[in-house]
Amino acid sequence: MPKQEYDPAHLNVRIVLVAPQGARNLGAIARVMKNFDLSELWLVAPECSPEDEEARHMAVHAADVLEGARIVPTLSQAVADCTRVVGTTARIRTVGDPPLSPAEGARWLGAGEGTAAYVFGPEDRGLSNEELAYCQRTVQIPTGAAYSSLNLAQAVGICAYALFLDSEPPPPVTYSEPMPETEALEGFYAHLERALLEIGYLQPHTAQRKLEKFRRLFNRANLTAQEVALLRGVLRQIGWASTQNRDRQLPLTPDT
Amino acid sequence: MPKQEYDPAHLNVRIVLVAPQGARNLGAIARVMKNFDLSELWLVAPECSPEDEEARHMAVHAADVLEGARIVPTLSQAVADCTRVVGTTARIRTVGDPPLSPAEGARWLGAGEGTAAYVFGPEDRGLSNEELAYCQRTVQIPTGAAYSSLNLAQAVGICAYALFLDSEPPPPVTYSEPMPETEALEGFYAHLERALLEIGYLQPHTAQRKLEKFRRLFNRANLTAQEVALLRGVLRQIGWASTQNRDRQLPLTPDT
Repeated sequence: MPKQEYDPAHLNVRIVLVAPQGARNLGAIARVMKNFDLSELWLVAPECSPEDEEARHMAVHAADVLEGARIVPTLSQAVADCTRVVGTTARIRTVGDPPLSPAEGARWLGAGEGTAAYVFGPEDRGLSNEELAYCQRTVQIPTGAAYSSLNLAQAVGICAYALFLDSEPPPPVTYSEPMPETEALEGFYAHLERALLEIGYLQPHTAQRKLEKFRRLFNRANLTAQEVALLRGVLRQIGWASTQNRDRQLPLTPDT
Repeated sequence: MPKQEYDPAHLNVRIVLVAPQGARNLGAIARVMKNFDLSELWLVAPECSPEDEEARHMAVHAADVLEGARIVPTLSQAVADCTRVVGTTARIRTVGDPPLSPAEGARWLGAGEGTAAYVFGPEDRGLSNEELAYCQRTVQIPTGAAYSSLNLAQAVGICAYALFLDSEPPPPVTYSEPMPETEALEGFYAHLERALLEIGYLQPHTAQRKLEKFRRLFNRANLTAQEVALLRGVLRQIGWASTQNRDRQLPLTPDT
């Protein structure tokens, strides 16, 4: 899947962090946001600063995301102008809709207009019931049972990646090299048969059966036209090498 | 999607980091591996230690993954016993198959048996062509154009998450034939090199570059153990044919 030019205006999703504690997480979050074309970072009563040296260090080339971060005292202010709000949760909740997966959450957010908010809780506790009340839907990242607590920046990264995937149509997979026509492939197989008979690898009465194994192998390889030419070059050289000494009684010294 | 009980035995994927530089990244990687039921971490000539205090700090409850990390000097050793090897790449490559997405890579890995390896390059450079030659497929995480360089631990997290999603429920086994371990494949490539040098198809000073084309071709074919044996039989016969007449001055009459 080749990288393509992407217009960030398509993604109008705001990442909202409630009371984040770690400056390094902040920087890592800024970086992964920029990786996936997100630029709006809002911090609700943060316990660390986007100007912290550790945040800038982890952001690397995403310093602009840190610098543009909006700081507000309450979650209500952070989502006031948003038409769709998703909150991340780790707990199984007994009320409300079942949580969406990151992919489903991305689709749900993408189905709306205006500004959307993706809300994450603090590192040590996740969003409270009161905070989740601002969220129309919740997203839960499925994890293994052995260790379900994700690092905050990892959680944002996984959700941001899902948003990115949902927002661009999958590009077609294209081969840059021309593929051989069947006629060329058949020519190769015929050449292969001659070469293997000549060196005594194949016996005439068992040739077809053994050749089938080679055909399956090379068919599976989806040989390009260049590779067919490459292999035929080897077959020619094998032919040369096996006759060369018969005639001249010289040590093997090719002239290519 | 509610969290479910998950049996980690289904995932037999080894995370291989080539020359990782940051101890904090190491710890973050250990943590996200455990989040997604991965436990085998291999480090190839690492520039940081899993015993580093910063690594342990970032790993939080995944100290066991760090403690179990295997350290080897070469990538070849890290993947020798693996039947499927995927390498991550950021560059657009002009040769070889187009890279897979993380989801496609997870499906491809899951379709095999035995141990699989997921290979990541160092923070500052990614995998070299030589290192990618060990990989039968590549995975590229699609990112925005503005900032395409992901933090190493983020990249592992996204790939690990895709593996986790793909692995439940466990996919049906599709190959009935045993797959060769990388060590056996490498033995074949070494034999191929010797044989092609002997018949004069390869010249010593251009051998490596030309061999890469053969490696890509045969890696793409997903050779079974039987096919490796088949091809080595051909190479042995080529060797026989090219020396036979030099010694005996007889017409080509094999004794098999």
